[in-house]
Amino acid sequence: MATLYHVPLSPFCRKVRLSLAEKRIECQLVEERYWERSPEFLRRNPAAKVPVLKMDGRILSESAAICEYIEEKHPEPSLMPANPEERFEVRRLVSWFDDKFQHEVTANLLYERVNKKLMKSGYPESKNVKAGAQKIKFHLDYMSWLLDHRRWLAGNSLSLADFAAAAHLSCLDYISDVDWDRSVNVRDWYSKIKSRPAFRSILADVVPGFPPPLHYADLDF
Amino acid sequence: MATLYHVPLSPFCRKVRLSLAEKRIECQLVEERYWERSPEFLRRNPAAKVPVLKMDGRILSESAAICEYIEEKHPEPSLMPANPEERFEVRRLVSWFDDKFQHEVTANLLYERVNKKLMKSGYPESKNVKAGAQKIKFHLDYMSWLLDHRRWLAGNSLSLADFAAAAHLSCLDYISDVDWDRSVNVRDWYSKIKSRPAFRSILADVVPGFPPPLHYADLDF
Repeated sequence: MATLYHVPLSPFCRKVRLSLAEKRIECQLVEERYWERSPEFLRRNPAAKVPVLKMDGRILSESAAICEYIEEKHPEPSLMPANPEERFEVRRLVSWFDDKFQHEVTANLLYERVNKKLMKSGYPESKNVKAGAQKIKFHLDYMSWLLDHRRWLAGNSLSLADFAAAAHLSCLDYISDVDWDRSVNVRDWYSKIKSRPAFRSILADVVPGFPPPLHYADLDF
Repeated sequence: MATLYHVPLSPFCRKVRLSLAEKRIECQLVEERYWERSPEFLRRNPAAKVPVLKMDGRILSESAAICEYIEEKHPEPSLMPANPEERFEVRRLVSWFDDKFQHEVTANLLYERVNKKLMKSGYPESKNVKAGAQKIKFHLDYMSWLLDHRRWLAGNSLSLADFAAAAHLSCLDYISDVDWDRSVNVRDWYSKIKSRPAFRSILADVVPGFPPPLHYADLDF
């Protein structure tokens, strides 16, 4: 069986968990406090971060590379469209969320409010939290604009782009930082994703010291 | 003909330029001062960054997605190995350089010394420059360790991983921030890459106000 070293509120780990679950690949989850940099963990992954996936006798790191690998080894059900133009759009949006959204929103909200406390590395900077709360509006509007034209974020089928976005938003929703009233089609999209069996394990996450709000696991939020 | 909106000392743009040149895809370069956020540029790319590639009547952004797209549309000469395990390793290393190396080294050295001046956004923070100068040693040692076992960074053929790494190092070499004496096999590897025809346009780059050192374009550095 595969093993995923992860932390519950990491969008990068959640993206991998969603891919594995969607493809029904059984996987054992092991929490790894990567910031403590245990020597054994560093041997597995010199980048010293999660996710790290043990699968097919290999040790895999970097979530984008992991998801492409899973896709190539287990192509069904597909999370990547067949033609290069559509594949481009999926990868563009995965980078959009894992780079731009990550730096503008996730790092400013989740890392300030949660990771700093878990890692005992200081207190939230209100300047950053404010910047994140402001920026998420632009991103929700961008998603809404995409969803005006498409069934899913990158086109008419569910793809890795949806999982990348849902991974970030679900972490932020855990700390009540998503305004679901801002856009009806973003809420509808999240509602569709949330009700997939692949999402169950994510809705069951609980981080000690940070109880999720009631609506977090509610499919009718 | 394709058009690439870029800035000369961007590792992400250079990675795309190297891919295009290696595949002999003709491309016109247009410098884009993306930080000035011209409305016309924002229309092309709401992420407001470079590279942006106009190709096949499409407007493409996000360098990782662009390179995969070029690879799929123009598979020869190949910059991606054929099997999923080796492809994983290429993608892992592309992320390593474009994420970890970028944040630990490039942002601390290049952005502090060059981008801040170009963007008129302040002066280099010596704390950051010191951190970057320290961290690059770890990365050069890691590359050296990989090259002890392999001809190229991700395996026995040239790949996108080499171009990602060379894109970062060539930008840092432009400001004399790479100690080529640290590892013989990293120097040999860079020497091989540097002498490829695909590298010529990069060695010819000149940024006003920042003359490159003499060794920058020297194939026998």
